[in-house]
Amino acid sequence: MSLNHPSVAIVGATGAVGTELIACLEQRDFPLRSLRLYASQRSAGRSLMFRGDGLPVEVLTEDGLAGADIALFSAGSATARGFAPAAVGHGAVVVDNSSAFRMDAGVPLVVPEVNEGAIASHRGIIANPNCVAIIAAVALWPLHRAVGISRVIAATYQAASGAGAAAMAELRNATGAYLAGRAFAPTVLRHPYAFNLFSHDTAVDRDTGANGEETKVVQELRKIMQAPNLPIGITCIRVPVLRAHSIALTVELARPIPPAAAREILAAAPGIRIVDDAEGNHYPMPNEASGQGDVLVGRIRRDGSDPSGRSLALFVAGDQLLKGAALNAVQIAERLIM
Amino acid sequence: MSLNHPSVAIVGATGAVGTELIACLEQRDFPLRSLRLYASQRSAGRSLMFRGDGLPVEVLTEDGLAGADIALFSAGSATARGFAPAAVGHGAVVVDNSSAFRMDAGVPLVVPEVNEGAIASHRGIIANPNCVAIIAAVALWPLHRAVGISRVIAATYQAASGAGAAAMAELRNATGAYLAGRAFAPTVLRHPYAFNLFSHDTAVDRDTGANGEETKVVQELRKIMQAPNLPIGITCIRVPVLRAHSIALTVELARPIPPAAAREILAAAPGIRIVDDAEGNHYPMPNEASGQGDVLVGRIRRDGSDPSGRSLALFVAGDQLLKGAALNAVQIAERLIM
Repeated sequence: MSLNHPSVAIVGATGAVGTELIACLEQRDFPLRSLRLYASQRSAGRSLMFRGDGLPVEVLTEDGLAGADIALFSAGSATARGFAPAAVGHGAVVVDNSSAFRMDAGVPLVVPEVNEGAIASHRGIIANPNCVAIIAAVALWPLHRAVGISRVIAATYQAASGAGAAAMAELRNATGAYLAGRAFAPTVLRHPYAFNLFSHDTAVDRDTGANGEETKVVQELRKIMQAPNLPIGITCIRVPVLRAHSIALTVELARPIPPAAAREILAAAPGIRIVDDAEGNHYPMPNEASGQGDVLVGRIRRDGSDPSGRSLALFVAGDQLLKGAALNAVQIAERLIM
Repeated sequence: MSLNHPSVAIVGATGAVGTELIACLEQRDFPLRSLRLYASQRSAGRSLMFRGDGLPVEVLTEDGLAGADIALFSAGSATARGFAPAAVGHGAVVVDNSSAFRMDAGVPLVVPEVNEGAIASHRGIIANPNCVAIIAAVALWPLHRAVGISRVIAATYQAASGAGAAAMAELRNATGAYLAGRAFAPTVLRHPYAFNLFSHDTAVDRDTGANGEETKVVQELRKIMQAPNLPIGITCIRVPVLRAHSIALTVELARPIPPAAAREILAAAPGIRIVDDAEGNHYPMPNEASGQGDVLVGRIRRDGSDPSGRSLALFVAGDQLLKGAALNAVQIAERLIM
């Protein structure tokens, strides 16, 4: 397998994340020898631009991935389970954006800013984490490494993009209909989305009361940060925003540090841009996080509910399609060819 | 002063809350003898419907309130400070929706479901709390009374209505422009609002890092619940929703109770409707809270971040204009004439 100027395949090339994968490879001058694009039967025959050429979108077959050195999957768990093992058998390294393999003990779950060292242990598959887990990990890890985190409480403000391009279109269409006074029946998401928000629409576990998204974020954050027992409480909410997730974080540390010290630690960490201007009331916002590779971090202050002074509060925002998905996968691929 | 079939005045009758005050009085068959409506010079000459009649909107003068038994103020702190004392001097009881008097030691700050007994101690002015404080208090108080709350962590999802009718119009207009691909310059709120969210745009205290809204909610919750030292950590965020606020609450109790017991306590409490359907993934949403007097409460579960089992998580939604403002004020007025 040659990972110097590799052959790259994108599986799920026409989806919201697939489109961003192509854009990331182009914008970051990824040194690939060839790029092949795969999608479902529905998209076959289309072509997508890459470096000035129109590339055909092919229907995925097991043999189709035979020539790939790196296969970037963003096509859901069923496709990943169905095709990733064969791709690995053919010699490819798979970076998979679905949840299919994330919690497998033999599969590294990687946010390069946090645990790029884990990449080396792969046996063919590397998992790209859940978008909230990635964005939270980028902000939490520097504090965990420097001071130690003993408890996290999070409330999310998640964009439509996490549910795919169709959900983004539904948010636009539902909102347009609302403003025009027209009825609109949702077909992608379970609840009305125009000027509305709702608890994340993954199945809720009857015992814990957690929904699937919340369970993923907790398990994945622990694995990424190698903190298997970190206590995490999270509420995942879908808000009428198009493509960047925000998170209100309350972080209990092993010892008290001043907010200014936390700000310095975070400002020096990779993948973070501090947006913390009290004077201008300017803090992380999804419209400014959209299209950015960095996670925006601000509202860095003491948590008023912890008299011990060990807890800090933060507000973060990150582009769900970029750092929360495509960019993180491409960053992993870049480290494969270093 | 006759509080049996009182003369009522509304100050700020044409605003978002003022309009709802009129509607609440009508819908609840408030037994008033007469209603007079006041607003600023800008609205003078308009008339608003009440019980089938058009009532003129008058310009507020000190003498204008001379005949009022109850004056419902929703016109901001400056107007409240300027006119409420004179109204009291003329014999009126003022229920004020601004923050002008809320933290005054001699002024009761009332959510009837929590502390209606405080009404009796008024000296002419009763303060209607901040909308987030009201909605949170309705959900927190039953747990505090039954078990005792030792810590609260909250993240809010606040609607445009909290910034008034002009902010609601700006959200609609900014979103319409975004969908049409037109530029839009915000004039009411500081940040772009179309498919965006931002930290609450009240001034930020340099020492605590809290914004004005957060400080209000903390102080007011403590006063309403008579829990002067309750540790509260809160992040206030404005989301692109029109008129209902949602809050993710993490509540540490004095002792562990099962989520089912908390649900029973909350279900039996006044002003609450439980919306907690795991099967249907149906939880409190602003579109269903809008127009409702009750606060919707759901996602009642253990907080995964507290191994002691003493912490619960909830998600609540309440109509900012009704229970968060107008309805609460009218409920106070109803108790004045009981």
